[in-house]
Amino acid sequence: MSDAAAAVDPYLDRTARERLEEYQAFLRIPSISALSEHAGDMRTAAEWLAERMRAIGLEHVEVSPTAGHPVVYGDWLHAEGAPTVLVYGHYDVQPVDPLELWVRPPFEPRIEDGRIYARGAADDKGQIHLHLWAARAWLETKGRLPVNVRYLFEGEEESGSVNFDAWLQANRQRLGADLAVISDSGFFQGNVPAITIGLRGLMYAQIDVTGPSQDLHSGTYGGNVQNPANALAVILAGLRDPDGTVAVPGFYDEVRALSEAERREFARLAFDEDGMARETGVPALFGEPGFGALERRGARPTLDVNGLWGGFQGEGSKTIIPAHAHAKVSCRLVPDMDPKRTFQRVRDHVAALTPPGVRVETQLISDGLWSLTGIDHPATRAAAQCLQEVFGQSPVYLREGGSIPAAASFGSMLGLPVVLLGFTPPDDHAHSPNEFMTLANYEGGIRTIARYWEALASALAR
Amino acid sequence: MSDAAAAVDPYLDRTARERLEEYQAFLRIPSISALSEHAGDMRTAAEWLAERMRAIGLEHVEVSPTAGHPVVYGDWLHAEGAPTVLVYGHYDVQPVDPLELWVRPPFEPRIEDGRIYARGAADDKGQIHLHLWAARAWLETKGRLPVNVRYLFEGEEESGSVNFDAWLQANRQRLGADLAVISDSGFFQGNVPAITIGLRGLMYAQIDVTGPSQDLHSGTYGGNVQNPANALAVILAGLRDPDGTVAVPGFYDEVRALSEAERREFARLAFDEDGMARETGVPALFGEPGFGALERRGARPTLDVNGLWGGFQGEGSKTIIPAHAHAKVSCRLVPDMDPKRTFQRVRDHVAALTPPGVRVETQLISDGLWSLTGIDHPATRAAAQCLQEVFGQSPVYLREGGSIPAAASFGSMLGLPVVLLGFTPPDDHAHSPNEFMTLANYEGGIRTIARYWEALASALAR
Repeated sequence: MSDAAAAVDPYLDRTARERLEEYQAFLRIPSISALSEHAGDMRTAAEWLAERMRAIGLEHVEVSPTAGHPVVYGDWLHAEGAPTVLVYGHYDVQPVDPLELWVRPPFEPRIEDGRIYARGAADDKGQIHLHLWAARAWLETKGRLPVNVRYLFEGEEESGSVNFDAWLQANRQRLGADLAVISDSGFFQGNVPAITIGLRGLMYAQIDVTGPSQDLHSGTYGGNVQNPANALAVILAGLRDPDGTVAVPGFYDEVRALSEAERREFARLAFDEDGMARETGVPALFGEPGFGALERRGARPTLDVNGLWGGFQGEGSKTIIPAHAHAKVSCRLVPDMDPKRTFQRVRDHVAALTPPGVRVETQLISDGLWSLTGIDHPATRAAAQCLQEVFGQSPVYLREGGSIPAAASFGSMLGLPVVLLGFTPPDDHAHSPNEFMTLANYEGGIRTIARYWEALASALAR
Repeated sequence: MSDAAAAVDPYLDRTARERLEEYQAFLRIPSISALSEHAGDMRTAAEWLAERMRAIGLEHVEVSPTAGHPVVYGDWLHAEGAPTVLVYGHYDVQPVDPLELWVRPPFEPRIEDGRIYARGAADDKGQIHLHLWAARAWLETKGRLPVNVRYLFEGEEESGSVNFDAWLQANRQRLGADLAVISDSGFFQGNVPAITIGLRGLMYAQIDVTGPSQDLHSGTYGGNVQNPANALAVILAGLRDPDGTVAVPGFYDEVRALSEAERREFARLAFDEDGMARETGVPALFGEPGFGALERRGARPTLDVNGLWGGFQGEGSKTIIPAHAHAKVSCRLVPDMDPKRTFQRVRDHVAALTPPGVRVETQLISDGLWSLTGIDHPATRAAAQCLQEVFGQSPVYLREGGSIPAAASFGSMLGLPVVLLGFTPPDDHAHSPNEFMTLANYEGGIRTIARYWEALASALAR
C-alpha cells in the first residue's frame, strides 16, 4: 500500500468537516477580477490564500504584484533528488450576472445533494483548495511531500491572463521545474475522469484592405474603382475551400497526422454532435470532411474570421465605395504547426488573392503554441493510474480546441510538459448561474493529487 | 432674331449689377439643411426665395411644408397651348467644414477674377437664381413666358431629399407638366457645355447571415460550426467575377447595348483616367473590360459592397465565431433594367451561394429607376441648340453614374422626360471649401434658359 493510501487517506477522512468549512470560507470572498469594485476582494482572496499556504507549511509564500491582480506563490522544495512540479490554478472568478437566475446568492455557498454551490466552487477555487489539502495531508502525516512543488495561483485568468506572461517572464529564473500540472479542467460527459493532454495553439491576424483615399460616391465612381469591401470578401473567401478545409498553400504541411491509436482514442469517446448543434443553435455542425467532431476540435487546425468591418453599417442606405475594409482572422493550431510560419503563409496567400486596384496589409496580432503531452508520457500515465485507483475508472484523454494561456506559456517560456488534471463535473455551470462542484469529485481530487505526487516521484525519477 | 436675343439679352446686360447684388444676398443666408442650428436660416432662405418669386410676377408662390425643410413652389401658367416645364433646383447648401481652408468666410461672397466664391454659389443657389432672372427678363420685357413653368425648389437635397418624394406624391395632381428641367449639374472638363442625358438607377439591399444563436468561443467550436463571417465572404465574393463583371445570373439580360452612335459619343469625350485615379488615390482604375471609364460610369451596371460588419471589430483580438454577419450591397442600374427584378436576381443568387450551416436573408432597402432622355429627344436638341448659340460650342452629352433623387422621382412618379441642364464649371469645388461659380457661366446660363423656353415652345408644340 502506498504512503498516500496508508496515511493520507485516513487523515483526509477525519478532517472532512474542517476542510469543507474552509472551502466555504474561501468561496465567500467575491473575488471577481473583471470588476474594479472587487479590487479589495481580490486582495482579500490573495491574502487568505497566502495565509493558508503558510499555515500548512509551504515556504517562500508571497503575494507577488503584477500590473493587475497579484500572483500568489509558495513552494516546498525539500524532496531532494525528486522532480519538481509547478502547480497552476487561479483564485479569481467570473462575474455573476444574471444574478436573478441564482437559486441562492453566488457568494453564500450551500451544500445540497452532494454538491457545493457557489461562484468559483468549480472554476477554480475548488481546485486550488484541493491542492492545498493534498499538500497539507502529506505534510501533517509524513512531514514531507514526495516531490518538490511550486504553487502559482493567478488572479486574472477570468480576465484574459493579461499580466501573467510578464510575471512569468520576470520570474522564470526561479521557477525551475520538470512538469507543470494545471487543475482548471474537468471530467468528460457522464462524469468520466479525464486528462486533457492537448490544447490547440493560435495565430491571430488582422487584414487591412485599402483603396481610395476616402469613401467615394458609388454612383460617380462605381464601375471604375476597385471596391475594398468586395476585395476583402474575395480574399476571405479564398482562404477556405467550400468543404471547410483551409486553402492556404502549405497550411497542413506540418500538421501531425493522427495515429491509428489516437483515432481509436477519439472514437472511444461518445460525443453528442446533435447536442452540440442544439446547444449552439446552428442547423447542423459543419467542418473538415473525414474527421469526427472531437478530432476536428482537438487535432485539426482551423481558419475563422473573428470579425470584419468596413464602410456603412447603419440603418438604411449610404451609397459609398468604402475607402477601406478590415477583418480579424485567426487559426487554431495543432502539432507540429509553427504559429509564425502559419502567419507568413496566411499573409502570403492573402497577398496572392488580393485583386488589382487595392492595397493589402496583414499583421500578426498574437500567437501561442499548441501543447500536447502524449498518452505515453510518464506523467500522463502516472495521472491515469491515480485516477483509476481513486475513481475506479480509467480516464479518457481529451484534446481541447481552445488555448489556456498559462499552458501555452509553461510550454513555450519554461519548456515544460503540461498535464491538465482537473476534477470538475462536466455540467458544472462554470461561468453561469448556480455553478457547483460535486463533493465526490472534490474529495476524489485531493486523494488523486496526493497519490500523484507519490507516483511522479518514481515516474519522473532522474 | 428670336425674342430672347432681341429683348431679353439687352435687359440682362443692363441689369447685371442689380442681379449680382441680389445673388450675393441669397448666398449670405447660411442655409445648411443638415445642421439643426441652421433651421432658422433655412426658413429665411425659403422666405427670401418666395419673396423674390412673387416680386418678379410668379404666381401661386408658397413655402410648402414637408416633414423637414419646406419646398418653395411658384408657377406662371399663362402660355396657353404651350408646353409646361417643371424646373427643379435646391436652396439648401452643404456644410462648410473644414472652415479653415476657406480663403474668405463661406457666407461672405467675394467676386474675384470673374468668379463668385461662396458656399452655394454653384450648388445650387446660383442655378436657382439664374432661373429667376431668365423668367424676370421675359416678364419684364415681354410680359410673358414662352412656355408654362412650375418652379420647385427643394430644401433637403444636401440631406438626401428624404421628404421630397412624399411631398411630390402628395402634390402630384397639381404638377402636370410635359418636361422636367433640372439645373443641378455642370459643364464637362475644360468648361465645355454639357447636357446630362442619363442617370443610373439604384437597387440597395442588405444581406444578413446568421449562424449560432450567440457568439461562440473559436477554440471550443472552431472546426465544427460554419462561421457566418466566412460564409458572408463567400457570398459576396460570388457576386462578381474577378474582372469586375457581375456574376448574378440574368443580371445583364435587360441591359440595353450601347449603339455605335452612343459609343462614338462617349469616345468623343476625352477623359483623364489617370486624373481620376490620382484624385481618388487608387493605384489604378478598375472595371468591366471592354468599356471606357465614361461608359462604365454612365451606361454599365455595377454591384458594390457599400458596407459590411460582424463579430469583433476592436483593438487586439477576441477569439469568437460571430453569431451573425451583414453587408449592404447595391447595384447601379442602366436602361432597361428593372430594380425589383434585379433585387430578386441578387437575392436568389445570394441564396444559391450560401454555404451549409448558416441562414441567409436578403432584404430590399431602396430602389430607384435610371433615367435617359435621348440625344434625339426634341427637348435635348433644343437645349443643345441654345447652348451652342450662347457659349459658341456645341455641348457634349453626359450619362452620369449617380442618381439624382428628384430626377428618378420625376421619371417614375410623374412620368416626365428629364433634361439636366446645368451650368457650373467642372472644378467648382461644390461640397468643398472655396466653392465658386464663374460669372460667364452664370450669365450664359440665364441667356441659355431664356432661349430654351422659347425653343421649347416650338420643339414641344403639341
